[in-house]
Amino acid sequence: MPGNSFGEMFRLTTAGVSHGPGYLAIIDGCPPGLPLCLDDLMPDLRRRRPGQSKIVSQRQEEDVPEIISGVFEGKTDGTPIGLLFRNQDQRSQDYADIKDKYRPGHADFTFDAKYGFRDYRGGGRSSARETLCRVAAGAIAKKILSAQGIRVIGYVKQIGPIIADIADPSAVTLEQVEATPVRCQDPVKSQEMIALIEEVRKDQDSIGGICELAATGVPAGLGEPVFDKLKADLAKALLSLPAVMAFEYGAGFSVATSRGSANNDAFIKKPDRIGTETNRHGGLLGGISSGEPIVCRVAVKPTSSLPRPQRTVTRAGEATEIATKGRHDPCLLPRFVVMGEAMVALVLVDHWLRRRGQCG
Amino acid sequence: MPGNSFGEMFRLTTAGVSHGPGYLAIIDGCPPGLPLCLDDLMPDLRRRRPGQSKIVSQRQEEDVPEIISGVFEGKTDGTPIGLLFRNQDQRSQDYADIKDKYRPGHADFTFDAKYGFRDYRGGGRSSARETLCRVAAGAIAKKILSAQGIRVIGYVKQIGPIIADIADPSAVTLEQVEATPVRCQDPVKSQEMIALIEEVRKDQDSIGGICELAATGVPAGLGEPVFDKLKADLAKALLSLPAVMAFEYGAGFSVATSRGSANNDAFIKKPDRIGTETNRHGGLLGGISSGEPIVCRVAVKPTSSLPRPQRTVTRAGEATEIATKGRHDPCLLPRFVVMGEAMVALVLVDHWLRRRGQCG
Amino acid sequence: MPGNSFGEMFRLTTAGVSHGPGYLAIIDGCPPGLPLCLDDLMPDLRRRRPGQSKIVSQRQEEDVPEIISGVFEGKTDGTPIGLLFRNQDQRSQDYADIKDKYRPGHADFTFDAKYGFRDYRGGGRSSARETLCRVAAGAIAKKILSAQGIRVIGYVKQIGPIIADIADPSAVTLEQVEATPVRCQDPVKSQEMIALIEEVRKDQDSIGGICELAATGVPAGLGEPVFDKLKADLAKALLSLPAVMAFEYGAGFSVATSRGSANNDAFIKKPDRIGTETNRHGGLLGGISSGEPIVCRVAVKPTSSLPRPQRTVTRAGEATEIATKGRHDPCLLPRFVVMGEAMVALVLVDHWLRRRGQCG
Amino acid sequence: MPGNSFGEMFRLTTAGVSHGPGYLAIIDGCPPGLPLCLDDLMPDLRRRRPGQSKIVSQRQEEDVPEIISGVFEGKTDGTPIGLLFRNQDQRSQDYADIKDKYRPGHADFTFDAKYGFRDYRGGGRSSARETLCRVAAGAIAKKILSAQGIRVIGYVKQIGPIIADIADPSAVTLEQVEATPVRCQDPVKSQEMIALIEEVRKDQDSIGGICELAATGVPAGLGEPVFDKLKADLAKALLSLPAVMAFEYGAGFSVATSRGSANNDAFIKKPDRIGTETNRHGGLLGGISSGEPIVCRVAVKPTSSLPRPQRTVTRAGEATEIATKGRHDPCLLPRFVVMGEAMVALVLVDHWLRRRGQCG
Repeated sequence: MPGNSFGEMFRLTTAGVSHGPGYLAIIDGCPPGLPLCLDDLMPDLRRRRPGQSKIVSQRQEEDVPEIISGVFEGKTDGTPIGLLFRNQDQRSQDYADIKDKYRPGHADFTFDAKYGFRDYRGGGRSSARETLCRVAAGAIAKKILSAQGIRVIGYVKQIGPIIADIADPSAVTLEQVEATPVRCQDPVKSQEMIALIEEVRKDQDSIGGICELAATGVPAGLGEPVFDKLKADLAKALLSLPAVMAFEYGAGFSVATSRGSANNDAFIKKPDRIGTETNRHGGLLGGISSGEPIVCRVAVKPTSSLPRPQRTVTRAGEATEIATKGRHDPCLLPRFVVMGEAMVALVLVDHWLRRRGQCG
Repeated sequence: MPGNSFGEMFRLTTAGVSHGPGYLAIIDGCPPGLPLCLDDLMPDLRRRRPGQSKIVSQRQEEDVPEIISGVFEGKTDGTPIGLLFRNQDQRSQDYADIKDKYRPGHADFTFDAKYGFRDYRGGGRSSARETLCRVAAGAIAKKILSAQGIRVIGYVKQIGPIIADIADPSAVTLEQVEATPVRCQDPVKSQEMIALIEEVRKDQDSIGGICELAATGVPAGLGEPVFDKLKADLAKALLSLPAVMAFEYGAGFSVATSRGSANNDAFIKKPDRIGTETNRHGGLLGGISSGEPIVCRVAVKPTSSLPRPQRTVTRAGEATEIATKGRHDPCLLPRFVVMGEAMVALVLVDHWLRRRGQCG
Repeated sequence: MPGNSFGEMFRLTTAGVSHGPGYLAIIDGCPPGLPLCLDDLMPDLRRRRPGQSKIVSQRQEEDVPEIISGVFEGKTDGTPIGLLFRNQDQRSQDYADIKDKYRPGHADFTFDAKYGFRDYRGGGRSSARETLCRVAAGAIAKKILSAQGIRVIGYVKQIGPIIADIADPSAVTLEQVEATPVRCQDPVKSQEMIALIEEVRKDQDSIGGICELAATGVPAGLGEPVFDKLKADLAKALLSLPAVMAFEYGAGFSVATSRGSANNDAFIKKPDRIGTETNRHGGLLGGISSGEPIVCRVAVKPTSSLPRPQRTVTRAGEATEIATKGRHDPCLLPRFVVMGEAMVALVLVDHWLRRRGQCG
Repeated sequence: MPGNSFGEMFRLTTAGVSHGPGYLAIIDGCPPGLPLCLDDLMPDLRRRRPGQSKIVSQRQEEDVPEIISGVFEGKTDGTPIGLLFRNQDQRSQDYADIKDKYRPGHADFTFDAKYGFRDYRGGGRSSARETLCRVAAGAIAKKILSAQGIRVIGYVKQIGPIIADIADPSAVTLEQVEATPVRCQDPVKSQEMIALIEEVRKDQDSIGGICELAATGVPAGLGEPVFDKLKADLAKALLSLPAVMAFEYGAGFSVATSRGSANNDAFIKKPDRIGTETNRHGGLLGGISSGEPIVCRVAVKPTSSLPRPQRTVTRAGEATEIATKGRHDPCLLPRFVVMGEAMVALVLVDHWLRRRGQCG
């Protein structure tokens, strides 16, 4: 209830702040008998890691968790999986001069308002570093889904004005995505994106973008009809990530200018199932999966921390300026992709388990 | 857990389908001592009602609930508020010919996939008629919020290509919104919108749009830092409404093309509090309210039910056509406004109570 | 969260008070496809009803619910089951003189302390009349369990000093239990119990007792290892019933004087499964079902409402006397049996569905 | 939902097994601003520790947690408190010969039935070692309660046939309890209890007992009227502890032989509040606290692990014998006291926060 848990039957609870000793993650509800070891978690954790390329933050963090519980003789045992991440490359001194200033775009002020004080050594609990717990949990979720033939893939769709040309979201492969540091499988546009990020960084600025996420192989029938619609839980999951300011699935905002006759997807008989001719519904009808690929997009704002001075006030309300000296991503999108995938995977496993319980 | 409840401390549970005997709503967690009677619920229920103007569905439903519990001598008594809505104007025969056909854009097929059969008399559990429970609960939520100086207002921002010109979302009044049947306070654009809806209806078609929602007077400090961010719960709440395909708050999707230096809102000293000069953050920083107006938008798809024939298949997979003869809205937006307001109000009350518990 | 719901995957939410218009019950999570009609609910509701024999309250209440939702063409459809019970035989005037007095043993004083006022027309929300919602939900739960070969039976084990002689709890049949109005299958002791209840009633007094509950056919493996142990959820379920002051399972309190060598049940090979020679563990080991019959007992206090004067104070704290004139049971046990069964059944279905989700 | 979390607004989630790397505990919902350090946790953890006296298990475990998160500059910061306990004195070889045998009284068999396999190195997830997470969380809960004038105390009421003579549960002090290793403040009976435990141990046997728990200073008005009654949540909390087989509060099982006229507690005016003359209701009326001391008792079974051979079967169902060679308590009661206190404290904090949210 205090908001540090996510999911009903596959439930992630996290604790920790960016500049404390580390993070804990407890994943409750993983079915027993799943082969699991550190190697299952590391690929996605490395995709999330800072310092992996020139266009992301240069902080060097290992981010190798210790598996404290939940795995016995190489398999999950049905009891909660406990993970411990140690924080290592903390440079708290970087934050000393911001102790009494509110960084624009950050949660400094709102934390103060909520709790009466804040951990000024960085983002504290609102730091995006918390997502390493989610990415680890997401890797487990993906492994469960994979055994059901369900795959979740994300990639950068847009950075600034540069929009990738991706014909079929469900055909994108992990190899294509990982082929460029910007995680966009359009080879031409990805070069432009990288150049833009470099330019923005030299300008002591940052840039936003859009991440597209696709889940394929999802059987029809996942999701609840009313409040816990799959679209609603996906929206919550993705909006719970830092910096996300918008969510849409299928035709998304473009439905505003659509007519029903053009927007409805006609049902047709497919070789192995009933499906739809087109997929403007993004794989979700009435909030329940239709068997077509689930496709959604989120907008990620430009990094709030900037090396250049920005106007703000002190806790006492006096006008001042602030320039954040930490090592920050000039664009969050490349590292965001795996966070987005994790949240989609967590939602899908949860609903898959819920449906198995409800309907056998 | 089966998905028919919403909220933690202010919790709405609903039951019912569009063509059964009626709907039940249980609102659990309403603080004791709130004056409450039917007159508090009816204004919003009338705003939601079909048949209120020419541009909405002509079904005639009274939608007057019976208050079964939770009110004693004119005040809430702290026990759950139970509401009963009787269905009255059911024309099940309208649906007889669609028993074995999947209506495009509806949940017919996905219900079949999930449960093994469906209530073919209409949308069943996925019918938007369920929102009358939410609107009633929302009216109670608004009354609680009102006592705290918090106001929630929604209006139509866009229908098809017609975009209203609204300078300050937080200055819009209920009177302005209710002045036109299209619920858009831009007098010029609202006439154009009405004309477009009429045109679309004559064409046996439907049209989508965008609803903007604003909450003013929200104190800084509501929302949880991680999963239950206020932005995440708002997204879930609004995406849980039928036909909603997209959500954004503040600058929303436009952040994709923004630079951090332009997107960050500078903190400034205001007469009574610290605030921000601009409000691209939509009143939410780190997922927690900042004290600035909360502003968000959702895209609502064009009505899926159309009088004109659409291609589809039967349950057996044979190609066929379907034209839905029921009385449907050519545009959902005018009636949607109050549903959106209700969901925003439910989220705000919930987080307000949660914070009172946590922080005193 | 505000406490009017019970269960995770099979979730009952209730609303209503004894002297208001009626009660609502929403049962969320019932699997689809279960044949269900009023006739499935009425037998248990009649067992709970006042006025069914001379030894219980003479209030005449029909207690026939209206099924508002969740059943389509004679089967559950997977959506929430909504029930409405109208209150009929209310004699609010019986309570007029107790408006400002706290009835000993009742929740009058504690409601005042919690909410600042109370519904003085009876027990309000704390009235045992609320259990009719539970009994109806329990009847549905029993039907689900029955299809799995699981049976729940309760009976009166003790009233005052009279203890029934029941060799094997799991062999007791519903017919035996229903053969006497006191719901005790020991023919000799049940006559003594009835005589005692009559005596107590003539004496304007009341008497307590013990109800024993047994569940047979429960497969090994239900229950969670830590907090949601089956024994813990049974205890909560039964203690949530009015007037219950104690719970024990298996050897119960007698373990205090046992040695481990005598208390442990030896595992043995049974024809179809591994089981235990004896059942001092009451069918639960580590809080998880063992496959042996689950056996538990609860103590029910003597009715608090008495026709004879009792000392108390007014809301202002002045010493006074009170005699409750309503029609009350001199002994709660005969009607309690079906309430206890309902709660056991609700817990078992919930854990059965949870396990199906978790472990397939 | 998978059962490794407890509480709504003050929520403990645990992970870990007795013979793995360690345990994690996440305490979510602790109000911000509470001074907290390791010294607040250690006294209760030492009371729980094995090896503290001759009459308990001789395993030597330090059980000093590392505080991973939730405390900033010596105070709780409102974010989840994360604790890590390393397992140290594991002697897995002690358990090697029990790999294929089911220990009587343990969860070995039921784990196999539930998950398809088990961690044979000890109790695994069902080991009572998990309670060190609860005791640490309970210490935090006690500190919160203490600031509200609420105190929770437990002590040994009975071991085997020896029953302590304790006139007023609410007058017992921690010093009195800790004065003897058996944690019973009756000086005469505690010597008899110690002698009995020694005797039982020499006999390679174990003995059960009863722990009494009292909470004083609890204001009237905590607890929910229906399912989440305080009595129900206390019962669940205490039954969720290993080896607990029974729970009662106030007059408990003795109400079975009581008449209402004798059992009801008369309300009287006390100097500072309305209260009751006697306390047979154990501080709870209608499941809500009355302001009188909350008094309850639980029965704890004799340790199931015995050095003497016991009959059982192998996983294959063959008859065999087993003698557990680990270092086990001959009587669980002395160490149980602090576990019981912890669970009572967790329930009280949770309901105190809930009420603050609901009623302000």
